[in-house]
Amino acid sequence: MDITRTELASLGEFGLINHINSRFSLQNPESIKGIGDDAAVIAQDATHYTLLSTDMLVEGVHFDLSYTPLPHLGFKAVAVNVSDIAAMYGIPKQIVIGLAVSNRFSVEAIDAFYEGVKAACDTFKVDLIGGDTTSSRSGLVISISVVGVTEHDKVVYRNTAKPTDIVCVTGDLGAAYLGLQVLEREKQVYMQDPSMQPELTGREYILQRQLRPSARMDIIHELREMSVVPTAMIDVSDGVASDILHICKQSNVGVALFEDKIPIDATAYDTALELKLDPITCALNGGEDYELLFTIQQSDYEKIKNHADISLIGYIQEAAKGNELVTKSGNRIALQAQGWVHF
Amino acid sequence: MDITRTELASLGEFGLINHINSRFSLQNPESIKGIGDDAAVIAQDATHYTLLSTDMLVEGVHFDLSYTPLPHLGFKAVAVNVSDIAAMYGIPKQIVIGLAVSNRFSVEAIDAFYEGVKAACDTFKVDLIGGDTTSSRSGLVISISVVGVTEHDKVVYRNTAKPTDIVCVTGDLGAAYLGLQVLEREKQVYMQDPSMQPELTGREYILQRQLRPSARMDIIHELREMSVVPTAMIDVSDGVASDILHICKQSNVGVALFEDKIPIDATAYDTALELKLDPITCALNGGEDYELLFTIQQSDYEKIKNHADISLIGYIQEAAKGNELVTKSGNRIALQAQGWVHF
Repeated sequence: MDITRTELASLGEFGLINHINSRFSLQNPESIKGIGDDAAVIAQDATHYTLLSTDMLVEGVHFDLSYTPLPHLGFKAVAVNVSDIAAMYGIPKQIVIGLAVSNRFSVEAIDAFYEGVKAACDTFKVDLIGGDTTSSRSGLVISISVVGVTEHDKVVYRNTAKPTDIVCVTGDLGAAYLGLQVLEREKQVYMQDPSMQPELTGREYILQRQLRPSARMDIIHELREMSVVPTAMIDVSDGVASDILHICKQSNVGVALFEDKIPIDATAYDTALELKLDPITCALNGGEDYELLFTIQQSDYEKIKNHADISLIGYIQEAAKGNELVTKSGNRIALQAQGWVHF
Repeated sequence: MDITRTELASLGEFGLINHINSRFSLQNPESIKGIGDDAAVIAQDATHYTLLSTDMLVEGVHFDLSYTPLPHLGFKAVAVNVSDIAAMYGIPKQIVIGLAVSNRFSVEAIDAFYEGVKAACDTFKVDLIGGDTTSSRSGLVISISVVGVTEHDKVVYRNTAKPTDIVCVTGDLGAAYLGLQVLEREKQVYMQDPSMQPELTGREYILQRQLRPSARMDIIHELREMSVVPTAMIDVSDGVASDILHICKQSNVGVALFEDKIPIDATAYDTALELKLDPITCALNGGEDYELLFTIQQSDYEKIKNHADISLIGYIQEAAKGNELVTKSGNRIALQAQGWVHF
């Protein structure tokens, strides 16, 4: 009998993960790292680790089929998993896909989804090696697990950032969130008047960032060529503010981010203003960017500083100094996460 | 635009898997075996393979929470994945769990589920190393991926059975299916009159086979100790008739099974008769037994013949001789699969 009832919302997503994790411990010597990073780490051979990560995408929670093309969804489902392997400094190798579909889906719809899966497999050089397809009484549910590989001396965790390390982020931030806002706005307009055409012209970039994000394997390959191994790394899924705070909490350090260094795309910036949203808030908290957020030693600064697609946005400091955002006017305010709430 | 619409039901589950698989090929040399067996096979080191399998369980399709205790469900979700590793002659090592839950679930309900997951992890000596928990707009969806290991010379596929091999199956068959029939019957009775108490006494075995099946890792360890490596193996999830036909089709061989050798538990037998079902049909086609169905060389017969929990149920023959069931009266009739239809 359920005498006590505690609502999931009272724990939150991360509280729930910690709550579950507290009951489990690792028993096999091959299990190097369990819950708590972008991917789990398993002993493979004398020099390599196997990486494993899983993600679930649920219709009505993570995607809306009324404006999400199925090939884009297939691509995104693979890309967000590949991004987890990238965030460990790993190379993705294989995926398995679990799919629950209702019978309102046709074979052609499944084909469209797998067309995107195949495009992503080709882009990221991963093999689809297994899966489980079953029926669903309601919406579409996609579960992907990805296997990758990295070297013992090159696995990058979240909990190893050190004071004076430089905080770097790839690409730009907030565009995926703003793309979603535009799609939701146009959906509302359409539902009120189906004769209206959606106003999406000129916003292709932010829509693509939402509907068909990539994973930054290009950056991992470049960092490997430059012999730059980050001191800590995470992929930006919940918003860069939330994600840097994961690194800080797990590394027991603080951080200072500079507002004027946060990379924002021009279309995203203009769209934020048009929607009466603060562009910097969108960039810090939007989420679903699937960029890489990492820290490097000062000695690697010269190798990174002129990279066109990597922004140096702050530095790691002692935990006692806290987590700060340095505003354009030079004020230091507390950096807070307003990431996604799933429950 | 969806000009042509092909219903999923027209392909069926296996047709859909083949349809999807035909679009993909393996590109990484580490990908040894993709879709089409109980688990995928990945190169690990000079002597070992990594095994990977994934399964999805959907509320209302694979389980009914009105009569499924959550700890049993957690145990079963892990066990059915471990069973896939067993069917490759592998040892399971790690699992990751994706969970989509609606907010009608409490933290206590999640805890009850993970209590069963933990019991299974302890039983099968696997580590929970990762997961993704998200919200669902409707029912509970569980996706588990499992990693295992086996030796290069001991991986057992489905497509390597040879004529004259002996067909073996562990445990007994049909009980899980009959347990489900009893549960469904009692549910109907209860829905018509909630004051009725369910009549489950004496049927504990078949109910447990449905609600909390195990995986036959005990058999894998025993076979390894006896140095018996099956020539082909699959776990019995769709029903032994359907599953032996997978081995036959993929091995390009035929089979003869003896009706009087099919192992049926006494409670299952009596329950079938009470429900006016043919016990042998239930045993051949029930499914969800999660026993191991395998073939061995004649030279291994002496090692196996007296094992209390392994039944020798038939032999492999040339494909031209077809797939046959030898009835108790000695007639040879065509062996047909009436396995689960998911769409």
